[in-house]
Amino acid sequence: MEPQSDFSLSCPVPASQYPHVLLAHGGGGRLMQQLIEQVFIPAFANPWLGERHDGAVLEVGGQRLAFTTDSYVVRPLFFPGGDIGTLAVNGTVNDLAMCGARPRWLSAGFILEEGLPMETLRRVVQSMRLAAAVAGVQLVTGDTKVVDKGKGDGLFINTAGIGVIEHPVRIGPRQVRPGDAVLLNGDLGRHGMAIMSVREGLEFESPITSDCAPLAELVRALLDAGVDVHCLRDLTRGGLAAAMNEIADTARRQIDLEESAVPVSEAVQGACEILGFDPLYVANEGRLVAFVAEAEADRALDVMRRSPHGAGACRIGKVVEGSPGLVTLRSRIGAQRVLDLLSGEQLPRIC
Amino acid sequence: MEPQSDFSLSCPVPASQYPHVLLAHGGGGRLMQQLIEQVFIPAFANPWLGERHDGAVLEVGGQRLAFTTDSYVVRPLFFPGGDIGTLAVNGTVNDLAMCGARPRWLSAGFILEEGLPMETLRRVVQSMRLAAAVAGVQLVTGDTKVVDKGKGDGLFINTAGIGVIEHPVRIGPRQVRPGDAVLLNGDLGRHGMAIMSVREGLEFESPITSDCAPLAELVRALLDAGVDVHCLRDLTRGGLAAAMNEIADTARRQIDLEESAVPVSEAVQGACEILGFDPLYVANEGRLVAFVAEAEADRALDVMRRSPHGAGACRIGKVVEGSPGLVTLRSRIGAQRVLDLLSGEQLPRIC
Repeated sequence: MEPQSDFSLSCPVPASQYPHVLLAHGGGGRLMQQLIEQVFIPAFANPWLGERHDGAVLEVGGQRLAFTTDSYVVRPLFFPGGDIGTLAVNGTVNDLAMCGARPRWLSAGFILEEGLPMETLRRVVQSMRLAAAVAGVQLVTGDTKVVDKGKGDGLFINTAGIGVIEHPVRIGPRQVRPGDAVLLNGDLGRHGMAIMSVREGLEFESPITSDCAPLAELVRALLDAGVDVHCLRDLTRGGLAAAMNEIADTARRQIDLEESAVPVSEAVQGACEILGFDPLYVANEGRLVAFVAEAEADRALDVMRRSPHGAGACRIGKVVEGSPGLVTLRSRIGAQRVLDLLSGEQLPRIC
Repeated sequence: MEPQSDFSLSCPVPASQYPHVLLAHGGGGRLMQQLIEQVFIPAFANPWLGERHDGAVLEVGGQRLAFTTDSYVVRPLFFPGGDIGTLAVNGTVNDLAMCGARPRWLSAGFILEEGLPMETLRRVVQSMRLAAAVAGVQLVTGDTKVVDKGKGDGLFINTAGIGVIEHPVRIGPRQVRPGDAVLLNGDLGRHGMAIMSVREGLEFESPITSDCAPLAELVRALLDAGVDVHCLRDLTRGGLAAAMNEIADTARRQIDLEESAVPVSEAVQGACEILGFDPLYVANEGRLVAFVAEAEADRALDVMRRSPHGAGACRIGKVVEGSPGLVTLRSRIGAQRVLDLLSGEQLPRIC
């Protein structure tokens, strides 16, 4: 088994009280949120970071741009449905799309471990080339560093990206309103369980493939159709549950979800049951939620379903006044429970 | 001693013939150049990468922007005159400045190793905050990943940056012309030897402090004064020699340097002699060369000397028709020799 994050801590203490960095501090859960709030935000306080969004929206000469970054440390480097290269392009493309931007330019920073097979690097670079072509972005600047054997883990990639915001929309958690419908573009948990199956050498009856995909076209279809999108968020580390908690917290609203409305494939459901994971917390790399006014929800779903990677679009919940920051889940048998943020991540190094 | 890059290989073979990544592939020398030319450029071929500059120049709605990235893997994390945080801000600020841009916004991606003392992270983040304030940039978006103990080396940082180009200049190696004067803003080798002194526990009579500094104000002073700057390059990995070779190669010109004109402090010279390093190949983090038309050289030097981090500005050589790609050095006793690119770097993980 992988070393587990301490997500099971029932009473987490503030990050500042941990004398050392834990795996859970990178897990997309409460400890990461605390690390950001206690170490990074106070140091760099500015309106962009204050938005708590997937990227920063900058204004240059009257043009709005989105700017974002992610490092990729996924293990293993290759998995069903993609590899670290596909992920490094699509992940950053998706963060730009979540700002309502058309992704245009990427940077790539490679940290190679001495001894990495050159063939591995070539394969990953080819994946990046293909993913960039599919997403319509150009990789325009880069950097390579090599660290001594034993001081890295084969290959880490950072990408940063710039996108152009072509619509006069304001998208972000602070735009979420009571009454908004919460829409999801497809079934959950495939990326995380695809990684898990390779790591643990598990064979499932139907092999699970990562959902890794670029979501910018789907977002553009929504905006081109004039849908008034309030917030978008891709469901990576920490899955649907983490994204909902972050948005509820920043928006100071309550979000109510319906478990029966959230699609999870039989294969993922089965794998999660065997391994003791909850698909609502498992990472995805081609799934997003869109918050739109209730009156526009059906039209938005139509647009999403006609878009690439949106065939399985569905409505999974709504925003209510309620308790600021609270996320609830109504189970299949009708009981409503709190869908909390975990301390860490069920699966470390998922992206 | 640190593991040495194989820079002493007398007859390097193409990178593609190395089955595995070597430390030297990240060293700023010939092997890194080959890796870029044989693996990255063919995959991502586009006009931006073709410029072979420190960053990409993008055009958005009539406004030119510079975009660049660097990962920082320096060891140790703290050294006289700075730390990995200072470096991560100034390095990217300087790459933007080398494009003639006013640095504006940075992203930061942290890869933390499980077990990193939280206090170390706080110190580094404080250094970044200070360096960003000094350089006048905002850190607007970020990402944190944690890797298992033994799969990283404490802390790696990637920064990407966006700058605004406010002058109608075209700066880059392809603008270099025969007759251009080569100007340098101060003495060489301090960053590399400061790192080396800590790594090896050496104590020199006068302690050597890194020259790590933001160079954007100096560049802006040149542009504001109307100096027609053809090319700028900061002298990081591989030092002056690597930068000169890269520029001579891209510009298809010959560059002749005068050894006696290149300032090296007594302390750095002494340390280099003891340790067997050549200061012309040692990394700097606050030094640049500027290529300007001969007629503007004296005025440019005046401007540089009045700017922050330019007090020691001097003329060190000139561009001639000669042999494309050749860099020569006239020694103190008058002999002219080829100043070649090393295969790797004398000092791995210097930035």
